[in-house]
Order: sequence, then structure tokens, then C-alpha cells
Amino acid sequence: LALKGSNYAGLLERHRIHTKNVEHVVDSLRNERIEVRLVKRREYNEETVRWADAVISAGGDGTMLLAASKVFDKFKPVIGVNTDPERSEGHLCLPVRYTHAFPEALQKLYRGEFRWQWRQRIRLYLEGTGINPTPVDLHEQQLSQEQHSRAHINERFQDQRSDISGPHLLPVRALNEVFIGESLSSRYAVCSVLFRENFKSCKPSFKFSLHRASYYEISVDDGPWEKQKSSGLNVCTGTGSKAWSYNINKVAHQAVEEILKIAKKHGSLNMPLNTELVQKVTNDYNESLLYSPEEPKMFFSIREPIVNRVFSSSRQRGFSSKVCVRSRCWDACMVVDGGTSFEFNDGAIASIMIDTEDALCTVLLEE
Amino acid sequence: LALKGSNYAGLLERHRIHTKNVEHVVDSLRNERIEVRLVKRREYNEETVRWADAVISAGGDGTMLLAASKVFDKFKPVIGVNTDPERSEGHLCLPVRYTHAFPEALQKLYRGEFRWQWRQRIRLYLEGTGINPTPVDLHEQQLSQEQHSRAHINERFQDQRSDISGPHLLPVRALNEVFIGESLSSRYAVCSVLFRENFKSCKPSFKFSLHRASYYEISVDDGPWEKQKSSGLNVCTGTGSKAWSYNINKVAHQAVEEILKIAKKHGSLNMPLNTELVQKVTNDYNESLLYSPEEPKMFFSIREPIVNRVFSSSRQRGFSSKVCVRSRCWDACMVVDGGTSFEFNDGAIASIMIDTEDALCTVLLEE
Repeated sequence: LALKGSNYAGLLERHRIHTKNVEHVVDSLRNERIEVRLVKRREYNEETVRWADAVISAGGDGTMLLAASKVFDKFKPVIGVNTDPERSEGHLCLPVRYTHAFPEALQKLYRGEFRWQWRQRIRLYLEGTGINPTPVDLHEQQLSQEQHSRAHINERFQDQRSDISGPHLLPVRALNEVFIGESLSSRYAVCSVLFRENFKSCKPSFKFSLHRASYYEISVDDGPWEKQKSSGLNVCTGTGSKAWSYNINKVAHQAVEEILKIAKKHGSLNMPLNTELVQKVTNDYNESLLYSPEEPKMFFSIREPIVNRVFSSSRQRGFSSKVCVRSRCWDACMVVDGGTSFEFNDGAIASIMIDTEDALCTVLLEE
Repeated sequence: LALKGSNYAGLLERHRIHTKNVEHVVDSLRNERIEVRLVKRREYNEETVRWADAVISAGGDGTMLLAASKVFDKFKPVIGVNTDPERSEGHLCLPVRYTHAFPEALQKLYRGEFRWQWRQRIRLYLEGTGINPTPVDLHEQQLSQEQHSRAHINERFQDQRSDISGPHLLPVRALNEVFIGESLSSRYAVCSVLFRENFKSCKPSFKFSLHRASYYEISVDDGPWEKQKSSGLNVCTGTGSKAWSYNINKVAHQAVEEILKIAKKHGSLNMPLNTELVQKVTNDYNESLLYSPEEPKMFFSIREPIVNRVFSSSRQRGFSSKVCVRSRCWDACMVVDGGTSFEFNDGAIASIMIDTEDALCTVLLEE
């Protein structure tokens, strides 16, 4: 790592800090005679979740997403502790001060000085010819996955005629968002080279361009189907409205200033155009993109829509209860919380909605 | 293809149209006793360019980008004919009417009823430890590339200590843009499966999430270095200002309406907020993103900047003569015109600028 110029000392230090913070949480729990099973990413599964009364994730927001991804029981609390405050915003975790004072958090839980927070999540139905409801875990490292997947693909090629399939409910619930877009840009993608000897240090030999527009049709709240071409479609929850969706949709101070300057030019501004006004408008606009994780509604946004003779997009973003998407893509996928991916190719139809039965139980400590 | 639900009949028809249009161009040239070499993508190379007095691309904008990518001579005209007007906007090609009336275009060229247009292009210098100045052609289909690249990677692992390298001028010139971003999202990316039997129908078994923020440092016009985290950095030419850059930066009618509503709420609008005003402001703003292909200046924009405690971004977009970027990414690349890709990992520094010697010679016919 160091030879390649990576900051090995920095990585080691962050690992040390994380390990120390995890020990603190585990010790705090065991001091209260709470039985603790400490599992790493690979060992974390639905059996472990069933065993537990509650799940605590120790890491950043990504770890919290992973923890939530195996919890389907509405009454199984999941609590996040941010063991890496330097690197993670910890939106999904307890406030950072509990990282070094976890017993305080436990005391509040004992005394009922908290309330339950149900974070709504998104469910996905997939149907159509040639769909593949088997998820790909983007964080999975095991070599066996290659063989597993090769068999999987062989199976699918054999079964090609057998698939007028009804809607499959996919075995995932999105805590942040579902993103639909082209996964690899090049139709002529050649290969990736896998060095079996040292897994972590190998990298695919080919880099694929990020930029490939996605073609699809979209229907919002059972409205009319619209053909679209864009860099992808993002459908988020209230939780996710602070995440990627926010970064897609937020407006820059610079852009608002420019827009108000133009409006002023058209004689439409009767106040001096100063930084304070621009800041207010920018902040108000960006805040309007956020909403409560407990609201059972979704926010969809189209990323970099391409508008021309063929494609239109009447609304670039908005709230909805249901979004249906029909893929017209060659090589697209649906990605849930940046961690699990499903093929979503020409002919497949996804139905995206919130069911309050899928909510994730978390806690909000009183401050 | 049809079994998978693809529109085979449609693909075949487009191929037929394209072939007919190509024949029309070739016949028109030969009728004037102009010697024509008709080459496909794979056969198109620098030797062919050297042989020619002029290069005509027959396809869409993508084909024009490919044609330009092998031309480094400022005085070798490259002309694009849009043989696929249904699918391609043809921004880089002659007006669509010449597709079926190419002799008219030739007549104008003979009579001098045109002017030369020099489209400025971007050059790239790369330096730093562990860089790899070998480009990967994202459109290249040949199997041998795998072996080529495997050898290439082996070489690099052996040479790891030998690389305090000065700036390499990369053998490419961007006609549209250079994009810098993470190429694959998952650090634990496993593999892609390659079916050697039927190349075009095989698809990698794993889809990688598109969403992975890129870390880098940026210095504009030799200004101070700024740490940034975003979905990537786009640096375009005047030509490219109509392309991806436009889609990244354009503002939606819906967003402008919302911004003006908020400004109105703060007492800042003295005109009724009607669709006409919103449309005017939207159009003016979006038009300000475009500029002449002949202007020797670049436009940089940061895609979905992440602003938090650690990362700031003083300017999200702007014009510049020089952009330097230091990679802090694990698995990033620089992608030129969506077709050629260079590794750009932790420690590598790219210097991006326009040199008028690199301009591409095209024609603007008088109308």
C-alpha cells in the first residue's frame, strides 16, 4: 500500500481508533451483563439477527446500512455507533459523543429517555422477461462467488424461454435509496483480470467509463409512461433524502446567484442582490429537499436528464407513493443502498414503493 | 437478442439505414474521382489518417469522437456525416440534410462556400508515483486485449520502485471533455465472467454500483489546492460544453420556479411569477453554459459535490486555462470523450489544459 503512495500509517491509525471504540461498546454492554456477539461483516447474517434482541452497528453509516440490510423484523431495534467520526458523518448513528461514553446511552435506554424512530424503507418488485431476482452483494469478497455466479449465468441461459414471470418481491429493503442506471458503460467490455493469489491488491485491468446514459420508461403514481434518457434515476426515503439524493438535487450558492442575477436583469428583483439573500434562498431550497425518515413517502429524482427531440421529462423530481420503471437498457442495474445490485435489463419492470411493515426500528435518545 | 426482449428488428433497420447512408457518401466521393478508403472502427488507425487528405466519419457523434481521436494534425480536416439521425443529435456532424444530399456538401467545399472551424481540444499531463500512462480503449473488442493487459499489469507490479516520473504527455486530445471519477464502486469487486464463445452477447456477471464518491485535490489556474469529495470532475471544451457538461450543469424549469418562489417569499420579486418568466430565466441560465468550440478555454464542473466538515468547494464550476488534480482515490480513472480511460490513483497528478496546436480542423458550410 505504502509503495503505491497510499497513506498506510493513516489507515492503520483509523483501524486502531475503530477497534478501540468497538471494545468500548462491547465492554459497556458486558458490564451490564448483556450478552454480546461481536461479528464482522462476513459473519453477519439473518441467523445472528434472529438470535439478537437488538443489533448495534459499530462503524460508519455504511456499516449501519449493512446492519439494517439483514433486519426485516419491524420490532428489532438497530442502533448505530459511529466508531469513525473523522471519516463518517454518522447521519444514521447516535450522536458522536456516545462513541466514547456509551454507558450514557445505555442509561438513557434503561430509563426510557428515548423514543422509537421508525425509518421507512422501500420495497421492490421485479417482473418481465429475462429478469434475474438474485442479488449481487457488492461487498462480498469470496472467490466462490465467481463460480457461484458462473453457474448462475449458465442456468439462466438454459432457461431463457421459461420466464414470463409475475412480480417477484425482492429480498431487500432500501433504507436510503434505490438507484437505477447503467452499470458499465461499454457494450464491448472485455474482462476483468482476477489474481487469485492476493485478492485485495488486485484490480480489474479495465476501467469502464462512468458515463453512459440510461434509457427507460417511468410512471409515477400510476401516471402515464414517459420515455427518458438520463444518468440514472434515484428514489429515496426520508432517511435517504439526506444522502445521495441530497447531493444530486442540492443547488449551489453560485448557481442561485446566477439565477437571481438573470431574474434581476428581467426586472424582477426589487431587493439588492447580496450574499445574504442568495444564501437564504440557497439554504431554503436545499432544506426543502429533506424530510422526515418516518414519512411513508418517496422522493424520486432524475439525474442529468437528457432532453431532446426524442426524450422529455415533465418533472425532474418530486414526491410519490409509487414509481414504476421499465428498462430499455442494455446493461443496467438497480442498486440498493450502494450495496446490493440487481440486473435490470431491457424488458424488466420494477415497481418501487413503501410499505410501513418494512420500517426499521431505531432509537432517538433524549438530549 | 430477440429472446432477451431486445428490439432486433429495430436494430437491423437502423443498420440498414446506416449502411445505405454510408454508401451514399462513398458514391458521392467516388463520382468526383476522389479516392476513398472505407474503414471500420477496428481498422481505423493513425496510418490511415496519414494516408488521407481528409477524414469523414459516418455515424453519429460517437463515431466523430472516434475519428477525431486518431487525428493529431491541426491541418487534417475531419468532417462528420450523421448516418443515424434518429438516434444521434449530430452536434459534431454536418446538418442532417447533407446525409441524403452529400454532393451538395461537396459542391460547397469545391466553391469555398465554407469556413474552417478549429475545435479546441484538451491535453493531459500525468505524473506521480505508480502512474500508468497506457490508455485503455473502452471500445476495443479484441480478446487479445486481455492478454495484453495482463502482461501490462505484471510489468507494473515488477516496476513498482522505479517510478518517480516526470509529467507524461498522454497520447490523447479530448474533443468533448475529460472526466475524473471512481471507475468501480466496490473495493471488493470480484470478477467479470468472460464467455469467449460469443463475445457480444456475454455480460459481466457482476454489476458494480455507480455511486462511489471520488476524493481528490484540485487547483484551478495555479490557485491554492482544495480537498474535494464529489461524484467526479468534468473539464470540457467549447465543443463539450454542449455535451455531458451541459447535462451536469443545466438547471430544470422546476428548480428555477422553486428558487424564484423562495426569493419572492423573501420579498424580492416585484413581477408576477409566471411560467414565461421562469422559462426565460431557465433558458438564459442554461445558455450561459455554452460557448464557442473555438475558444481556447476550458469549463470545469464538479458533479454532486459533497460539502461537510472536511470537504469544501469554493466554486462548483467556472472557466479556466489550467486545472490540476491530485488523486486520492483508490480506483479512479480519467476518461477522455467517454472512450479512453487512464488509471488515476492515489498519488497521481494530472495537469489539464488547452494548447491551440491540438485543435481539430473541421468545416462549417455556408447556409
